[in-house]
Amino acid sequence: MSSTYGENLKLSIFGQSHGAGIGMTLDGIPAGLPVDLEKLQVFLNRRAPGQNNWSTPRKEEDAPEFLSGIVDGFTCGAPIAAVIRNTNTRSGDYANLKDCPRPGHADYTAQIKYGGFQDAAGGGHFSGRLTAPLCIAGGLCKQWLEEKGIYIGAHISWLYGLNDDFFNPMEPQIHKVCREFPVLNLAKGLRMQEAIAKARAEGDSVGGMIECAITGLPAGLGDPMFGGMESRIASIVYSIPAVKSISFGIGASVAHIPGSENNDEFTIENGQVKTLTNHCGGVLGGITNGMPLLFHAAIKPTPSISRPQQSVSLSRMEVTSLEIKGRHDPCIVPRAVPVVEAAAAIAVFDAYLATFRNDWRK
Amino acid sequence: MSSTYGENLKLSIFGQSHGAGIGMTLDGIPAGLPVDLEKLQVFLNRRAPGQNNWSTPRKEEDAPEFLSGIVDGFTCGAPIAAVIRNTNTRSGDYANLKDCPRPGHADYTAQIKYGGFQDAAGGGHFSGRLTAPLCIAGGLCKQWLEEKGIYIGAHISWLYGLNDDFFNPMEPQIHKVCREFPVLNLAKGLRMQEAIAKARAEGDSVGGMIECAITGLPAGLGDPMFGGMESRIASIVYSIPAVKSISFGIGASVAHIPGSENNDEFTIENGQVKTLTNHCGGVLGGITNGMPLLFHAAIKPTPSISRPQQSVSLSRMEVTSLEIKGRHDPCIVPRAVPVVEAAAAIAVFDAYLATFRNDWRK
Amino acid sequence: MSSTYGENLKLSIFGQSHGAGIGMTLDGIPAGLPVDLEKLQVFLNRRAPGQNNWSTPRKEEDAPEFLSGIVDGFTCGAPIAAVIRNTNTRSGDYANLKDCPRPGHADYTAQIKYGGFQDAAGGGHFSGRLTAPLCIAGGLCKQWLEEKGIYIGAHISWLYGLNDDFFNPMEPQIHKVCREFPVLNLAKGLRMQEAIAKARAEGDSVGGMIECAITGLPAGLGDPMFGGMESRIASIVYSIPAVKSISFGIGASVAHIPGSENNDEFTIENGQVKTLTNHCGGVLGGITNGMPLLFHAAIKPTPSISRPQQSVSLSRMEVTSLEIKGRHDPCIVPRAVPVVEAAAAIAVFDAYLATFRNDWRK
Amino acid sequence: MSSTYGENLKLSIFGQSHGAGIGMTLDGIPAGLPVDLEKLQVFLNRRAPGQNNWSTPRKEEDAPEFLSGIVDGFTCGAPIAAVIRNTNTRSGDYANLKDCPRPGHADYTAQIKYGGFQDAAGGGHFSGRLTAPLCIAGGLCKQWLEEKGIYIGAHISWLYGLNDDFFNPMEPQIHKVCREFPVLNLAKGLRMQEAIAKARAEGDSVGGMIECAITGLPAGLGDPMFGGMESRIASIVYSIPAVKSISFGIGASVAHIPGSENNDEFTIENGQVKTLTNHCGGVLGGITNGMPLLFHAAIKPTPSISRPQQSVSLSRMEVTSLEIKGRHDPCIVPRAVPVVEAAAAIAVFDAYLATFRNDWRK
Repeated sequence: MSSTYGENLKLSIFGQSHGAGIGMTLDGIPAGLPVDLEKLQVFLNRRAPGQNNWSTPRKEEDAPEFLSGIVDGFTCGAPIAAVIRNTNTRSGDYANLKDCPRPGHADYTAQIKYGGFQDAAGGGHFSGRLTAPLCIAGGLCKQWLEEKGIYIGAHISWLYGLNDDFFNPMEPQIHKVCREFPVLNLAKGLRMQEAIAKARAEGDSVGGMIECAITGLPAGLGDPMFGGMESRIASIVYSIPAVKSISFGIGASVAHIPGSENNDEFTIENGQVKTLTNHCGGVLGGITNGMPLLFHAAIKPTPSISRPQQSVSLSRMEVTSLEIKGRHDPCIVPRAVPVVEAAAAIAVFDAYLATFRNDWRK
Repeated sequence: MSSTYGENLKLSIFGQSHGAGIGMTLDGIPAGLPVDLEKLQVFLNRRAPGQNNWSTPRKEEDAPEFLSGIVDGFTCGAPIAAVIRNTNTRSGDYANLKDCPRPGHADYTAQIKYGGFQDAAGGGHFSGRLTAPLCIAGGLCKQWLEEKGIYIGAHISWLYGLNDDFFNPMEPQIHKVCREFPVLNLAKGLRMQEAIAKARAEGDSVGGMIECAITGLPAGLGDPMFGGMESRIASIVYSIPAVKSISFGIGASVAHIPGSENNDEFTIENGQVKTLTNHCGGVLGGITNGMPLLFHAAIKPTPSISRPQQSVSLSRMEVTSLEIKGRHDPCIVPRAVPVVEAAAAIAVFDAYLATFRNDWRK
Repeated sequence: MSSTYGENLKLSIFGQSHGAGIGMTLDGIPAGLPVDLEKLQVFLNRRAPGQNNWSTPRKEEDAPEFLSGIVDGFTCGAPIAAVIRNTNTRSGDYANLKDCPRPGHADYTAQIKYGGFQDAAGGGHFSGRLTAPLCIAGGLCKQWLEEKGIYIGAHISWLYGLNDDFFNPMEPQIHKVCREFPVLNLAKGLRMQEAIAKARAEGDSVGGMIECAITGLPAGLGDPMFGGMESRIASIVYSIPAVKSISFGIGASVAHIPGSENNDEFTIENGQVKTLTNHCGGVLGGITNGMPLLFHAAIKPTPSISRPQQSVSLSRMEVTSLEIKGRHDPCIVPRAVPVVEAAAAIAVFDAYLATFRNDWRK
Repeated sequence: MSSTYGENLKLSIFGQSHGAGIGMTLDGIPAGLPVDLEKLQVFLNRRAPGQNNWSTPRKEEDAPEFLSGIVDGFTCGAPIAAVIRNTNTRSGDYANLKDCPRPGHADYTAQIKYGGFQDAAGGGHFSGRLTAPLCIAGGLCKQWLEEKGIYIGAHISWLYGLNDDFFNPMEPQIHKVCREFPVLNLAKGLRMQEAIAKARAEGDSVGGMIECAITGLPAGLGDPMFGGMESRIASIVYSIPAVKSISFGIGASVAHIPGSENNDEFTIENGQVKTLTNHCGGVLGGITNGMPLLFHAAIKPTPSISRPQQSVSLSRMEVTSLEIKGRHDPCIVPRAVPVVEAAAAIAVFDAYLATFRNDWRK
């Protein structure tokens, strides 16, 4: 089940960072959904490296080739398959990783799990590069949800202790997120970029928090128990490397306030049931209540830092010092923003299919 | 898929709070695993209501009857099925819920999703009572994991702003959790109990945070991407009603420290690879690294409070005031502790089966 | 996954022949579907033993108790769970089975698979009795399909070399199947009953063939490749013990005629696309074409015969002679007829949910 | 679920006959399994068209490019992805298919299901060409099973009323199948080839039956009920276009003989439990019994024939005559032989993983 997700749709992701290519197969999509490939490329570019001065200088084209599933701009009912060719790889940088695992990476756990047969180059299947096919699938789901008036947007809410403004949970202004750097408040974003630049200069890295909002959701999406929206979203968001926390609505703050304050009381607004607050983040009993769905995901600092770190030689079973060479993002949080949106889009679209599948068919 | 979980095992949970009974079917379990029903009952009693002065005065027997799957104290390879009969139900308390949904409950979302056909009494399938069959399955998985030296323990780490001591992430002392009230520091636990008593007196409720640790895990459990341990655990923990946040290791703190501090450097200890710190909570790339696995889950305050709250009449589409009668826990956090353990046990056992299935066969 | 079936619905079957009870959980069913329990009982009685002179004299009540999922005669959206208590069991009859496996039964393979931990009494989880919960699920699905004008009927087409009349593949008269003995031609059915009586007198058993037809199916059900209607139906029909063959339309005859004869040419009838023949049995490319769906399933003779047979002692690893005592059907084919209908109903309803899920919601 | 198969492995097949490419993703395969690409190509060539005088003159290279999952000749634990580029396509041949469906093809059902958005060219996702990626997956599984001494072989047992010799069910001589034309008896095979040539000359086509045997299987593979070997194999074999019947062991003959004859009595041979006959085809209760597994699958005559046939115009809703142009196999049975082997290999390997997963890890 490792690299396959979904209940109504089936998403299968393949590839290794330095292999021939990476890609995805997306099965179970209704026929007749429009596909805007240019819009998809704009979305993919938000994740791609080398687009700006705060990420890795590697330039990789995240240009997918679609092998099947799309005909004349519409889905045709067959599984959608897309491939991104790997280029500009430098395997030599990673030669030592099987013996001397990088702290914070999957090198060691992959070595144990796959007994040395894993593709260690560039992190192999564990590479952050595998979020590119996730973005292909998510970018498509995002387009289709937008057809139904459902919008997904995210921004960096925290970065190395610096906070952005936050979404209004009653009416998150997802379209106000800046294009250059994904924050609501560009002044605050500039300070974040300074923190990233400082980390780079020091051979270090920084992490952050991403706030994601989904607007326009109908009430009634999701299922009880294991099919709840929180389970569905958390499950796929945790597949993004570096995520270490996910919370919905006010999240961990529920541990500190009384029920009388936490409960979102009901009201009627323009003939529709609404809540006066949105502490629950739009989900009750696992099912959407028609209010905006909000969640936060924490992203750890890039583990690849250029400072010397203590590691071990697995062949000699002795402590050693490791210096990671090569070019690495001092902060992956900005590039993770569209990935979080993509993951949310896939989970929501999958749940939507279960409930409203026939809405997609005329 | 709503009430079915698992990759190698298949857990199916059924029942409504005030129906004839609740229960579970657990399929895919190897034959020949020992089952200690007395030990299971002790575990189930930790969740059962009415056992103490900080929970609801309702007395319900959570005594499962096993209909299949166990013969002479061992699993026989057939699916395990268990039923708990519902007794001591008082449907009258809940007559109004379909028209006037309780804030913070699934009443409204269930009404939308099931069009009025849902069993509203006592929350129906959304009731916290459905965590009892989860504890049957989890209690069994816990026993089987203990056969392999894997132990799971949890405690209340926060309750309405009051904290307990925390687990040592390098060596969590899960056996030091108190039996009467699940904390490490009983003095701190007493203050928590006072907060609960105060909430009860005020017709209010309080939430909290649960810290859970798993020790004795071998390295190599879990899979990349969607099959990662974080995805597996988060997915099932979010099926527990009231959970609004889950984080692994130091969780959201990764947003505030540099990579040089967050990375867990490797070392050799008694001929085994270990890490010098355990910020990642025992999981790298979705796969266990042999260190203790740690996570936190936030539990919201019981939404059922006796104070008047604003709600709406769905039939008249107008705002109304709601007063919830009946007996309710002012705080479900203590009873949620074994439920979190159960959820973790199911997820870990499922992952274990994938990797070490044949260990269960002689 | 052994005892769990379905894509949109999730059917989980549990129990052993001589355990406390057998039953099923059926998850994923829309809320608001009517349930007629009396009609269901009539259906279950067609499978139940001891109802007539051609089956086993054991009298077992196949009276399910519904524990959840149904409220006031309608599905409520929660999983449907039902239990049938086991009574009138005689474990003593089966004491020797773990050492000396019955030819044609699963005794030996269960011993190998479960290492002696299996519940051998009465065949345990492998008993034909487990088709009772399959009939609960299938009987419900049948009712719901009938709401949409889809009818499923089966009859004995062959029994020990004696044939019944066959369905007209263009318009199968499923309502003409006799109630007393499931054939179209009662005179032919009487000869079959004589063959059964003769087999009983000789301590032997006989097998047969069941023809099943589904009428009223819309075109467009099913999916390409692994989701085809043939795959879906074959997969669940082969879960019925004793089935050794399943074919669609004219089945194996396709090996003997040319394409010009086999192809079903298209025509227009009352403004609708039809085919002039129905050799394909209503399925093209895995998807229904709007013609009746027809298939045949072969049922092997009951392996439990009273004649002495050669077996082995697994403990002594030597050849031995086995005489099976107890009461057994000399022919299970008549009782298998509703089971085949049930299996088909589950598969069709599952496929229907995928395509027309929202039709069930107003 | 349409194009995704498997319990422990996850096979996802994509592509349309005349799209950019076809391929597969195979997830869940243990790391460290050897891959012999030359041997795989030899296997794929058995299915590829244009290799001989009895199939279509189209020459297509079924040369897969592996994008991920294999490093230095071994599986690396990441999903295996392979693509075959489509070449030598002639879309013009198929322009009319959306309006005027070919009898016996999926043109009409695809039109209904996908509302005209399907890729009709060459049958799109329903094309027999999609069995090429099935053969990639199956060819790999076949190699891995051979490592465990499990061999799979098939031959044409019937073709247009002409029969080959049959496998000895106690010891099927799968290595005696001829290479040029997959039969056991080449003289009989020549008569089959004459029948094919005659059908071609007449603008017609012929079908046949394939007998498949699996030797070296350990006892204990498969699961009860829905996880039985017959369910697993039937489910995937029915995904092969044109299959209309599958039976195990003596198949439909069970309807005609008594239990005393059908039962396979047990014996001891060289210290191992065997059966004296193999009527059940190596499967009891869904689980392998250690005897060879045997099944038959019937393949319908190629529906594409050059004779004029009656069809309809869907736009004008009137009867019309259709003449199919282009090059088509007068008989796909020989090419279907490796496809049946591939399907069986996938099903068996999937079941094997569940039971003996750890055998694949040192």
